[in-house]
This record gives sequence, C-alpha cells and structure tokens, in this order.
Amino acid sequence: MSSVAIVAPQTHTFSEPLTLQSGAAIAEYTLMYETYGQLNAAKSNAVLICHALNASHHVAGVYADEPDNVGWWDNMIGPGKPLDTNHFFVIGVNNLGSCFGSTGPMHTNPATGKPYGADFPVVTVEDWVNAQARLADVLGITQFAAVMGGSLGGMQALSWSTLFPERLRHCVVIASTAKLSAQNIAFNDVARQAIISDPDFHGGDFYAHSVVPKSGLRVARMVGHITYLSNDDMAEKFGRDLKCDDYQFGFGVDFEIESYLRYQGDKFSAYFDANTYLLITKALDYFDPARRFGGDLTQALANTQAQFLLVSFSTDWRFSPERSREIVRALISNKRRVTYAEIDAPHGHDAFLLEDARYMNLVRTYFERIAKEQA
Amino acid sequence: MSSVAIVAPQTHTFSEPLTLQSGAAIAEYTLMYETYGQLNAAKSNAVLICHALNASHHVAGVYADEPDNVGWWDNMIGPGKPLDTNHFFVIGVNNLGSCFGSTGPMHTNPATGKPYGADFPVVTVEDWVNAQARLADVLGITQFAAVMGGSLGGMQALSWSTLFPERLRHCVVIASTAKLSAQNIAFNDVARQAIISDPDFHGGDFYAHSVVPKSGLRVARMVGHITYLSNDDMAEKFGRDLKCDDYQFGFGVDFEIESYLRYQGDKFSAYFDANTYLLITKALDYFDPARRFGGDLTQALANTQAQFLLVSFSTDWRFSPERSREIVRALISNKRRVTYAEIDAPHGHDAFLLEDARYMNLVRTYFERIAKEQA
Repeated sequence: MSSVAIVAPQTHTFSEPLTLQSGAAIAEYTLMYETYGQLNAAKSNAVLICHALNASHHVAGVYADEPDNVGWWDNMIGPGKPLDTNHFFVIGVNNLGSCFGSTGPMHTNPATGKPYGADFPVVTVEDWVNAQARLADVLGITQFAAVMGGSLGGMQALSWSTLFPERLRHCVVIASTAKLSAQNIAFNDVARQAIISDPDFHGGDFYAHSVVPKSGLRVARMVGHITYLSNDDMAEKFGRDLKCDDYQFGFGVDFEIESYLRYQGDKFSAYFDANTYLLITKALDYFDPARRFGGDLTQALANTQAQFLLVSFSTDWRFSPERSREIVRALISNKRRVTYAEIDAPHGHDAFLLEDARYMNLVRTYFERIAKEQA
Repeated sequence: MSSVAIVAPQTHTFSEPLTLQSGAAIAEYTLMYETYGQLNAAKSNAVLICHALNASHHVAGVYADEPDNVGWWDNMIGPGKPLDTNHFFVIGVNNLGSCFGSTGPMHTNPATGKPYGADFPVVTVEDWVNAQARLADVLGITQFAAVMGGSLGGMQALSWSTLFPERLRHCVVIASTAKLSAQNIAFNDVARQAIISDPDFHGGDFYAHSVVPKSGLRVARMVGHITYLSNDDMAEKFGRDLKCDDYQFGFGVDFEIESYLRYQGDKFSAYFDANTYLLITKALDYFDPARRFGGDLTQALANTQAQFLLVSFSTDWRFSPERSREIVRALISNKRRVTYAEIDAPHGHDAFLLEDARYMNLVRTYFERIAKEQA
C-alpha cells in the first residue's frame, strides 16, 4: 500500500557557540538529520519531528545499504502515510547530547582533546529547540507547517510553540505532558542511580577505560521499559507464563516477562550511551514551562500562536490522558484552536509508536487539513 | 490512650529437617519470634502475624533496652489497640531466609561450615507457612483465632487457610493478592538484577569478601519504594519541589523526591541482606495457589474453613483492590463467610501500615467480633 523511502543522513556543523539554559555553552556542534519529501517553493510544507528518549533523526524510510534499518516512526511518516511525504517535507533531527550522530558526550571536547564524558553540559528541551531552530535557519525554513513529537518529542513541540510562536502553524503533541510528576522523576532517578553506581561508569569517563556501564544501562532500561507498557498489556502478553515447564527455584529466568525485560535491557545496553541516558532523563525532569509563571500553565502558553493537536492513550500511565488534558485546558483558556483525542488503546505509553487505526486516521486527517490550508 | 508493651524476642531451633517446595530441605533452622499478651487456658486466643518483605518478628511494642525500636505494626497491635493484646495472644515470627534472626543466607551452612550465601535454598510462602505451623506446635497452639498479614504477609495468611484449613478460625488478608502480575514480577526482577549485577554481590557469597552489594540494594529499594507509594501521594508529598532554589544542572540531587528515595535506598542497603532480598522477591513471584488448579482460584480455596476479612486500599497500584476482589469472589463462590472493605486512602500500598481511622476501626470491630465468638 505504501512504499518505503530511501533516505540518507546529513550533518550540519554549527561554529557559533550555543548558550544553554544552564548558562554553559557549546562552542561548536554538529546536528545529524534526515529529510523526507520535497520542500515546496514557498518553503511552507516543512514538518519537524522531535524524538523521544532513545530515538534519533532516523524517523522514516531505510538506508540504501541498510534495508532493515527502518525509521522509528515509519508507520506514521512516508509516501501515502498519515504524515504524507508526497505533500510534506519532513525533517528528523538527532538532539544534542544524544548518541546517534549529533554532538554528544562520546565526542571530542575541543577544550581538552578528550571525549566530553561527564563534562558534556546538561541540555534541556529548550536548548534542543534552540538548536533545532538554527538548523531550520540553515534549511531556509522560516515557519514550519507543523512541529510534532511523542513523549519527550511532544515536549519539544510544545516548547517550540512558546519559544518560537511565529515559526510553526501547527503543534502536534502526542502522549506527552507539560511536566514530569514526582513518580516520573523517581523512575528516572532509579535509572540514573543504576548507571552512576555501576563501577564501569567511571564518573562518566568510561570511554577512557574502554568499558561501558552495561549492567547499569541494562537495569535503567528494564525499569524504563516497565513504564512504557500498560499493566493490562503486560498481563495479556506475558501474564505469569513460564519460560520452562516449572519453577526453577533459582535466580535465572522463571517468567517470560523476566526474559523479555532482560533481553530489552541487554539489547539497549549494547548500543545506547550511558551519559546520553543521564542527559536525556534530566531534560525530561527539568521540562516545566509553567515553572517561571509560578506553575500557571495558561500563562506559560499565553504567547503561543499555533493550532494544536493533542493525543493521549487511555492506558498510558507514564503520561496519562489527564496530563494531556491539562495542556488542552490551558490552551483553551488562551482561546487557542485545539483538537484533542484520547485514544482507547491497550498498549500504554508505547501506543504512540504503534499502529492503531483510529490514531493513524486522526493524524492523517489532521495533516490533510494542514495540507488543504496550504493549498 | 494506649500503652506501649515491652517485649523480648525468643528463638526456637528445629532439628528435624524441613522439606521445601523446591524439593530441597533445610537440615536445621532457628525461628525468631515474639509474643504479646497471654495465651488463654483454652489456647484459643492466639493470632499469628505474618510479615511482608522487609519486616520481622518485631511486630509491636519496644525492647526494654531499645525504647525507640517500635514494632512495625505497633499502631495495630498492643494493649487497647485494634488487635488488642489484652484479649489476644499475638505472635510475630521472622521468616526463614530473612535477615532479622531466623536462619538465613548469612548464617552458617552446617554442610560447609561457611555462610549459606547463594546456597541458601529458595523458600516459598508455603514453606514459611509450614515452618510457622511447626512453631505453633511448639507453642501448643492447635488452632489460631486468626492468621493475619498485609501484602506478602497476606499471602501467608491466605496460604494458611488452604494448607491448614482447620488450624485458623479467621484469616485476615490486607492489601494482598492471590498472585503477582507480570508488572509486579517485572519490578521484582529489576530489583534482583540490580543486586546480582553489583560486583560486590560476588554471586551471593559477598560475606566471604567482607563487602555488601550496597549499590544494588539501594537501587532495588528505590524501585520497590516507588511501587509502595501512590502517584497522588507522591505528587502531594513531593511534587516537583526542589532541594535547592534552582535546577543544579548536574546529576546530584535536584528534586526532593530524589533525595527521599536515595535516602530510603541508603538506609535500606545498610541493614538489609541482599540474598534475603532475592529470596523474598522470589517467594512473592512464586506465590500462586491457583496454579495447580489450572488457574482456578475458586478451586484453590475450596478446602478453606476459616472466615475471612479482606481489606484493600483505593490508591494501591501494587496490589490494587481488584486483586482483593478476585479473592473475595473465589471465597464467595465457595460460600465462605467474607468481610471485604475497600478503604479510600491516599497512601498507596503503604496504607496497610499507616494510621487510618476507618481501617483501624474496621480491624478493631472485626477482632471484637472474634473475641465475642470466643467468649
């Protein structure tokens, strides 16, 4: 029904320093990005996709030499797909501090000639948005048709709407929140403590020791993964199914869920950078646009100009529907035009990445509307 | 209003081997226990209290030389308290494999002359109940007025009702479940993996190395602790409160919830045994009395003779009210006499340990009924 696009990553190196929210600056940095579809003559059909914790610029399609390396949102984005790259020019960008090509803690710190490691500055959602805006400048995009993201990506989209209100016509925020709860922060800190207390972490400078804090990353991913799935979905997929016929009366694997989580943890720890994990969970924790307005989200969103699509999923207990409704209420108080859908889906937070007819149709219809507005 | 009892722990050593569910046996073992109140002449007023993960035989009162060491359920048990030791003879017993005085992995394995460590056999809820029944024999208690516990303690009480149906008149099961869910098991396995992958764990034989896998225990406790509190309670107690005036832009403590959890983790890792943690989480995972009845809980509870009190708490997401209702339905199908209360309380799973007027009154009224039946 839909074809798979062939894409190739590109990079741009920025030599002007980027001042960060912390007050620190990055002297020079590279962003890795990919584009899909064609920018129209009016440069009015660009859509920026912001990624979540462990994703990257590789949003859709495959690489010519890696036909199995499918972009993480390929079910959503591509020719004929809900975000149709026959009409839109889509950009995926890897965030600063990540580990998929943009400048991150594993790269050489020009000030020392060694990997940044623990010296890589803490970056925030707002810092990412500022860096993304510079990339938009380079690409000649004054205003996006939409900025879109799920989870942490949704935070970036929301942040775009307040930091650069005139630079996006639509803001698509999926399975996200205007701030983490104490419980969300708690889970992130468990993950961080697992990594930091792994002796192979070496205070963040493990590159010099040619080791990786795999055990810590593995535990971090396991606990994170639990929060991505719904209780019901886990019950249905795994329940109390055993790996063998009977209890093993030891501490190997008894239950399928243990096997699954350990596998996910092992896989993740083999490719993800530990410092990046720390940085990205901190960006999550710190995001709170209402903070400098005394907690008043309505005030925080008062300067937005975009139209909004918000989507939440009924069984998402990481960022529950109530968290999206909070944003919707604040936008409505500001008389913004908002579409909000609460999708009844069993898959918890991960639902935003999964195929679901109602969800896909909703996004398709919304982008068809955007396409019509442009025409 | 109520006085604090002075208690003293006692021990009994059993020299007859105990065969375990796994098929292994413990040749010889000691149980540490405490008693409160007086056993009446008919020996009909005894109540056994079963403890949860990190608790012990020290259920109520204080020690003469440790006036601050108050038993973990002292708000519930004592003279004039809901479970009134002026009427009942209450027994608290530390379970096999625990680390508060009963035989556990830190004790000498008579077969090797070294600490059991990883060689301590995996014990189940049913094994604990069998061991407790032997202690009841020693104390001359043929039938308990009640067996009572919360959480994992409730599993033991439920297990008593099927393993020794004639030995208890009442079974009090609080904030518990007839089996862990996949999500519950997943959290337990995160905790176990954190401990096992700590290099100081040494495959369970850390005693010989004079170290303790503190980092692993700390992370294990942090993740466990999150599941004991409700989302709302955490939001109310901690929210996004900062420890300092502003974000620190580092990986120390930013939020109060981080400080709290790390403190809880540190405290726990200083006193709890890592092998015990593994053993107890396995006992939790394995508990599933319906398993040998093809998952039919009604059949599993068909041989019970006791009357039941079940209590759940509205915001408990570890063992939600639905898990108690499942037990209630199975008991009613068996025409057992059941009292069930769902307490609207904000404190999540921990609510079973906390002061709550409706909860305390309910238990008080129930035990007053038991006392009247005896009279």
